[in-house]
Amino acid sequence: MDCVNSPEDLKSLNYEQLKGLASSIRSFLIEKISKTGGHLAPNLGVVELTLALHRVFDTPRDKIIWDVGHQCYVHKIITGRKNKFDTMRKLNGLSGFPKVNESPHDAFNTGHSSTSISAALGIAKARDIKKEKYSVIAVIGDGALTGGMAFEALNDAGRSFNDLIVVLNDNEMSISKNVGGLSKYLSKIRTEPFYYKVKEDIDIILNKIPAIGKSAVKALDRVKGSIKYMIMPGIIFEELGFKYIGPIDGHNIEELENVFKKAKSIKGPVFIHVCTQKGKGYNHAEENPDIFHGIAPFEIESGEVISNGGPGYSNIFGEELVEIAEKNKKVVAITAAMPNGTGLDAFSKKFPERFFDVGIAEQHAVTFAAGLARNGLVPVFAVYSSFLQRAYDQVLHDVAIQKLHVVFAIDRAGIVGEDGETHQGIYDISFLRHIPNMTIMAPCDYNELRKMMKFAIEDFDGPIAIRYPRGSGSHKLFESPGIELGQSLILREGKDVSIIAVGNKVEVAMEVAALLEKMDLSADVIYSRFIKPVNPKPIINSAIKTGKIVTIEDNTVEGGFGSRILEIINESGINVKTKIFGYPDRFICHGSKKELEKMFGLDAKSIFNSVMKMFNRYSVKDIVVEGI
Amino acid sequence: MDCVNSPEDLKSLNYEQLKGLASSIRSFLIEKISKTGGHLAPNLGVVELTLALHRVFDTPRDKIIWDVGHQCYVHKIITGRKNKFDTMRKLNGLSGFPKVNESPHDAFNTGHSSTSISAALGIAKARDIKKEKYSVIAVIGDGALTGGMAFEALNDAGRSFNDLIVVLNDNEMSISKNVGGLSKYLSKIRTEPFYYKVKEDIDIILNKIPAIGKSAVKALDRVKGSIKYMIMPGIIFEELGFKYIGPIDGHNIEELENVFKKAKSIKGPVFIHVCTQKGKGYNHAEENPDIFHGIAPFEIESGEVISNGGPGYSNIFGEELVEIAEKNKKVVAITAAMPNGTGLDAFSKKFPERFFDVGIAEQHAVTFAAGLARNGLVPVFAVYSSFLQRAYDQVLHDVAIQKLHVVFAIDRAGIVGEDGETHQGIYDISFLRHIPNMTIMAPCDYNELRKMMKFAIEDFDGPIAIRYPRGSGSHKLFESPGIELGQSLILREGKDVSIIAVGNKVEVAMEVAALLEKMDLSADVIYSRFIKPVNPKPIINSAIKTGKIVTIEDNTVEGGFGSRILEIINESGINVKTKIFGYPDRFICHGSKKELEKMFGLDAKSIFNSVMKMFNRYSVKDIVVEGI
Repeated sequence: MDCVNSPEDLKSLNYEQLKGLASSIRSFLIEKISKTGGHLAPNLGVVELTLALHRVFDTPRDKIIWDVGHQCYVHKIITGRKNKFDTMRKLNGLSGFPKVNESPHDAFNTGHSSTSISAALGIAKARDIKKEKYSVIAVIGDGALTGGMAFEALNDAGRSFNDLIVVLNDNEMSISKNVGGLSKYLSKIRTEPFYYKVKEDIDIILNKIPAIGKSAVKALDRVKGSIKYMIMPGIIFEELGFKYIGPIDGHNIEELENVFKKAKSIKGPVFIHVCTQKGKGYNHAEENPDIFHGIAPFEIESGEVISNGGPGYSNIFGEELVEIAEKNKKVVAITAAMPNGTGLDAFSKKFPERFFDVGIAEQHAVTFAAGLARNGLVPVFAVYSSFLQRAYDQVLHDVAIQKLHVVFAIDRAGIVGEDGETHQGIYDISFLRHIPNMTIMAPCDYNELRKMMKFAIEDFDGPIAIRYPRGSGSHKLFESPGIELGQSLILREGKDVSIIAVGNKVEVAMEVAALLEKMDLSADVIYSRFIKPVNPKPIINSAIKTGKIVTIEDNTVEGGFGSRILEIINESGINVKTKIFGYPDRFICHGSKKELEKMFGLDAKSIFNSVMKMFNRYSVKDIVVEGI
Repeated sequence: MDCVNSPEDLKSLNYEQLKGLASSIRSFLIEKISKTGGHLAPNLGVVELTLALHRVFDTPRDKIIWDVGHQCYVHKIITGRKNKFDTMRKLNGLSGFPKVNESPHDAFNTGHSSTSISAALGIAKARDIKKEKYSVIAVIGDGALTGGMAFEALNDAGRSFNDLIVVLNDNEMSISKNVGGLSKYLSKIRTEPFYYKVKEDIDIILNKIPAIGKSAVKALDRVKGSIKYMIMPGIIFEELGFKYIGPIDGHNIEELENVFKKAKSIKGPVFIHVCTQKGKGYNHAEENPDIFHGIAPFEIESGEVISNGGPGYSNIFGEELVEIAEKNKKVVAITAAMPNGTGLDAFSKKFPERFFDVGIAEQHAVTFAAGLARNGLVPVFAVYSSFLQRAYDQVLHDVAIQKLHVVFAIDRAGIVGEDGETHQGIYDISFLRHIPNMTIMAPCDYNELRKMMKFAIEDFDGPIAIRYPRGSGSHKLFESPGIELGQSLILREGKDVSIIAVGNKVEVAMEVAALLEKMDLSADVIYSRFIKPVNPKPIINSAIKTGKIVTIEDNTVEGGFGSRILEIINESGINVKTKIFGYPDRFICHGSKKELEKMFGLDAKSIFNSVMKMFNRYSVKDIVVEGI
């Protein structure tokens, strides 16, 4: 591995040496990721595939687009970044995803699923318009292929005349076991060698026909004309307009190379079906590819995750949902390919007939939920904040307009940390709160999460979202009363400033208040259980008392909760100074949650320091000019 | 037609009578829609299909979900609403789309494309969990089938065991001629009768084989096992797990009925491929189904649209884009199945190699644009505001993070009028303005639209949106200077109030100022060319001078432009009374633009009246309590 510092270095190696290289890359990945955490199993699965791609194609001239992108580690190792591997997913370090700003070998940023074919087609069309010559390759998993936009892109690319190579990395998994009709179809191709034989068989039979009448001659001609349809594998992709090649053993570099070379010379769109094993080469990851998909630091020998202490919000959500569903038979749960990450695994085992894994298909998930709700059930769709972005239209158009009782359990809301800018869940308040008929809540601890779930499922009727952060939180900050729509709770009373916080920022607000107390300043701390609707009365009463408002949220400040509070204050006609704390109007890079919170002034100390400044006067020269 | 007041009334008719009924429904549709405007061609195409569905199935017990929904007029006529047909798409009248609140026969609200299979699957799953018995039918066009979420739903439904019928209404059109690999495939099924013959042919050949050796016996067995793959039509749907039936003549009621009856008794998901002609029975609509898709009032004899006077924003956009593209070879244009509606038809004819109709596939369109931009072209994606909702994630994740120079030409922003709540473009400011790196503009007249397009395409680099309304506007309200980022123009100066408006509300702002003048009140009128970023200086200077701000936008007030102004005012620390005019936090029904503007207090007179109230004092008892 030492001698490989760029793709060029691969080209002089023989297959024996490549085998050795693959093996040392695997050891490297296991060792490094065991310490830092990261996406292990996807990368172990694509070692040979990545090597073969880089031997046949010349990046950065040729463009490889990695769908989702968490399988780009081997690509990063080969393209001169192995020495920075220890910095991966750390603040200011390498990203865990392809980034055009990081290397010319990264052709397009990815992070969310199913985007690669669209991007690749765009790049290929531009290449042809500009009359340039090189290959454009999208590498997409069979899980990502179930995302609707991948199909939209296949449908568009299939009828185009642009040279484009789609490599299907088929490991029968999205993050968990892949689902759906397409998955069944791919697995049939993989497992029934029968299909390859059909063409051959037809020939044998045709040769056995000694003498045939006129009608049979015609029939024979037609059958011959349709022979291509009898080469069964890949007919779906052939019908969409692709030349299908496969299935190929994704761990055989030589075979992969031969196919890639062939594909390079074919005109028009080509679809190469490569079969790989997720987690290949590390027994624990082979056995539990879902657990080792994206994993925290672990012990190599045992495969045990080094505990990060206690259950997280996802677990509490999963536990509580099972409890509620035991009594309430109407409750059903939906995931888009993330039964584990969302904490729904217990539910899926206990109530298999009420659990739906729809695949990587957030749009369908939401409208499917709308259908379930229309027919009287109470669907709970557990989804990461940044992935719900994919279903914004469905939330608005299919759920909210009809006021359907769909519960959105929005996990990974706020800063997610190491996955970085594509995964930060800091937009959901802004993209949900302007949707009519939506109700949005955010719990400050596990106890509140449980209460909010009961409220949302049992006491409420209509579209409702509960957003909660990644990782762990406090069990119970205080004894809380039953929930009323729009309600705030005053957790601490003061006279100098009103601190209004949502979700996990309530704890921070309490810390800020404690710090202020040391400066002889006292604060109202208001926990707004609801982000929408917000009962303005307690807020306005407090604001009238203190004359100063501070809002804290783990969302962008643009159009977020603080912005809603400004609207409320403005409607009331009172005059108070308001300071909004949240993430600024820029994408937030990767790093630990703590580092990022501090970097953007959202830890208790930074907020305290800013609040102290409120006790001075503003003047016109302090006007903040917005990036102009 | 007179004797049909409910689906029951259809069941006693014979085929001759049904033929007559179909004919009188067509005359009725042509006559009514020629006066009111509406979706003519789609409804003319589904007359027999709708009659057959209602003869075989029993709504409201059985559930029919109409994808998109603009083809539901015949359904509405049959289900007791023909007498209200004159009110269709008018304020307080029938909606042009299915609405559960309008009739129990409407099983699910639709409006945007490709949602029906998801909703139907949800309804069917809930039915089975509740152990109820009835049929669930999704009726979807071949255009809508290219939308990714339809594929997500097919993929999920195909492996389910729930009884579900998907009726593909294949007319080879979305709004315009349908595109893509799938469309080619469907058209092959329609046009090559050859395919039906294959199964038959194989049998003939097999019977001709007199004596065969051992290897051939095996081969024969395998071929027999694979015979189902030789029934070519629909193999894509079969592979996804559906039982495929088709293609069926969609204008033959008897044939349709037989197939629907058969489908009713089949276990699991069934896919019925029905071929219809869009515009059937009215020569002008048959010849120009795209023009007669959704049409303004027209003369029946000539098929000429009764002019609504002058070009609209879409035309100006289309004209200007051609002009820019003549000089700038990097400019390419994208539509998601709407070359006509968006004004791109001239461009598509002039620069066919730089024009891309990707089908109903907004998600793919945006990421495809990102790929084009990544490779140095300047893509302009012309799209209706409410359809861009479908691509929120792609705008954020694929364009904005990478700061790619993609121009979003957002047509039908603001109130669209007759299409109602699913189509109002009043969310785009709120769902775009919190996306980092986004720039958003809104022209107040055609002259400004042209300038903004030049700015966005020639002078700018990065993601940029220009939003403009449906229909026509003023040509040139004033001589305007060149554009600078973030800039506002002060159109009128005063001392009592600052009116800040965007887009087509600038003209209203001028009217309000004129009305105020009569009351001896003078207003600054500030035209904010940019919705994001906004240079705060002129706004704050004006606000300091007048002490009162009024903002006007044709967007929801939640998280919109006014909300951004509040953020700016708040950051500046000054104290001014602000009143935000925009649409309230509820879905806006159908009606004419004028009626709706008045209804929601957004015409000049209503705004003037509200502004007058600002000159009184507020007190705490006036606090607006938000719907609690």
